[in-house]
Amino acid sequence: MPELVISIDAMGGDHGPSVVVPAVARAVKLGLNERFLLHGDEAVLKVALAKAPTLEGRIEIRHTDKVIGADEKPAQAMRRGKGASMWNAIEAVKTGEAAACVSAGNTGALMAIAMLILRMSADLERPALVASWPTLTGRTAVLDVGGSISADAQRLVEFAILGAAFHHAVHGSVRPTVGLLNVGSEEGKGHEEVREAHRLLREMALGFDYRGFVEGDDIPKGTVDVVVTDAFTGNVALKTGEGLALYFIAVLRSTFTSSLLARLGALIASAALRRMAERFDPSSINAAPFLGLNGIVVKTHGGADARGFATAIRLAADLAASDFVAQIDRNLRTMTAAMPHQADSVAPDEGAEAGERNKA
Amino acid sequence: MPELVISIDAMGGDHGPSVVVPAVARAVKLGLNERFLLHGDEAVLKVALAKAPTLEGRIEIRHTDKVIGADEKPAQAMRRGKGASMWNAIEAVKTGEAAACVSAGNTGALMAIAMLILRMSADLERPALVASWPTLTGRTAVLDVGGSISADAQRLVEFAILGAAFHHAVHGSVRPTVGLLNVGSEEGKGHEEVREAHRLLREMALGFDYRGFVEGDDIPKGTVDVVVTDAFTGNVALKTGEGLALYFIAVLRSTFTSSLLARLGALIASAALRRMAERFDPSSINAAPFLGLNGIVVKTHGGADARGFATAIRLAADLAASDFVAQIDRNLRTMTAAMPHQADSVAPDEGAEAGERNKA
Repeated sequence: MPELVISIDAMGGDHGPSVVVPAVARAVKLGLNERFLLHGDEAVLKVALAKAPTLEGRIEIRHTDKVIGADEKPAQAMRRGKGASMWNAIEAVKTGEAAACVSAGNTGALMAIAMLILRMSADLERPALVASWPTLTGRTAVLDVGGSISADAQRLVEFAILGAAFHHAVHGSVRPTVGLLNVGSEEGKGHEEVREAHRLLREMALGFDYRGFVEGDDIPKGTVDVVVTDAFTGNVALKTGEGLALYFIAVLRSTFTSSLLARLGALIASAALRRMAERFDPSSINAAPFLGLNGIVVKTHGGADARGFATAIRLAADLAASDFVAQIDRNLRTMTAAMPHQADSVAPDEGAEAGERNKA
Repeated sequence: MPELVISIDAMGGDHGPSVVVPAVARAVKLGLNERFLLHGDEAVLKVALAKAPTLEGRIEIRHTDKVIGADEKPAQAMRRGKGASMWNAIEAVKTGEAAACVSAGNTGALMAIAMLILRMSADLERPALVASWPTLTGRTAVLDVGGSISADAQRLVEFAILGAAFHHAVHGSVRPTVGLLNVGSEEGKGHEEVREAHRLLREMALGFDYRGFVEGDDIPKGTVDVVVTDAFTGNVALKTGEGLALYFIAVLRSTFTSSLLARLGALIASAALRRMAERFDPSSINAAPFLGLNGIVVKTHGGADARGFATAIRLAADLAASDFVAQIDRNLRTMTAAMPHQADSVAPDEGAEAGERNKA
């Protein structure tokens, strides 16, 4: 495989270079063979890199002292962002210097600038965000968990296309299975958007295996590879899941401190319990690519630690090594050709404003 | 407290009297001081009661050999249901013979017949179903998880009223705290219905403590006593939670069988682990009252065992002993008076049909 270049916004997020540089070192240690463009303050980056000798020869610093703030509005970031670390990180993807970009910065600004610089595939209005849920058998991709808090039938079909391409690229499924989230599996359940999307997905041949309606419990069960829903429902499901994970951990902790015997049992089983805690590690799901752009941009949580940020780098590399963007574009064109009406495309500026107002 | 009478559809659900009678015995053993009307086949009930001597003097059998089938459509059940065990169980509430009714039968039929016989409070269109989530500090009531898969602002305000009265009656909160489920806690988040409901709830004085927007993770955290949402989102959150509970249990099981040391640890901590398993017992959340009727009807899962059914009986008794129905009616009238427009009330027949089409 040719050597890929990953472009990184080294100033984004709560921690900037103090997390970004160790994250790159971690990704390399775990086997990543990429080179990296680090966009940000050269002096600060040099200090951080001095502590990471394994990165020698893999890093190129692209200096800028301009940074997009955590509270900056998307519209403002688009107008004034040129030359900022985030902007330059994305622009390197546009020019072809890098195969993918990673940032822990302001989500709304990142989405708006990415839309402005890279543009959307086909007729898409704005990117979708995907969450990869751990299941007993693998990973289920749930989308949208981003800006589309309501979604018409066509938008839901687009999510299916984006999610299937994502699962194929990142989790290696040959012909991903896709389900539409609903409140029952029978025909005629749910609101009109869902029923209409169901009809469209059954009729179109889009290169994945559409399995019909699924319910909430199918997400952790891993019944399908991709679960499609609007961002309101997707966000509620994701947050509910995060809250429940914390609840279970708290119950487990109180269980194993409730008596002397329980403490002893936990001590004896401690190696197994530690392995279990790692499975519940939230840093494994907090990296999310913006799906549907003409280029790869991965957003990670502003508070991500080196481990979480490294996961995002790994994800960006997996996507960059796949035919993800081309596959999405192909399927979107197939869908558009088969749709009765075409949605008007929205200029990046309006789309970004809507994304800002509605972002999850 | 005066002795209450609970009316029970003894033929509903997958098991009928073989579960219902042991459930009544269990509820009595756990301290319930009620009397019971059992509606169903006298011969079958007598056989079951012969094995439950503790119920002597507390039971009155109301014979009928008519039963509403699990697959019967609501409209059909309303037309042909008169005299069936489910019908008679509800009618005993209407006539004042019983203070509450419990059934494990067909949800759609139960809702339709209950609406027909008892009618809705004030201007309500159809009942809401509530799920009581276990949290670290108590129980959070989430509604709707029933038939209202989309809900306008007024319907969301109604859910807040119904949920607050429920939490007060069943979980004893003096002034329940209420939150509106959204994808962020800031003003301006979410779709229009949610934002408008937020505005209405802030303005109206409805006897509970409205706390604004909450997110999915606030449900298991127990941030508020009542979480309000439409039935689509409520059902997805509930099912996702059920699926995650099974996922965590499976992970826990594989953790404690992954090595000899882990097995030994589990053995030593077994008493604590058993107590934990009881906390996750789904029978503790599968009883749900229909909120908003002029009378108390509690639905429990068709497959409920004696333990689950006993929980439903307990819930019915708690609701019957409270001023739940009157409180809801009072608050609904306050709300209606304060609303700019009044919704037209829907005839029971149409409402039930809609309930059938959309039921979760």
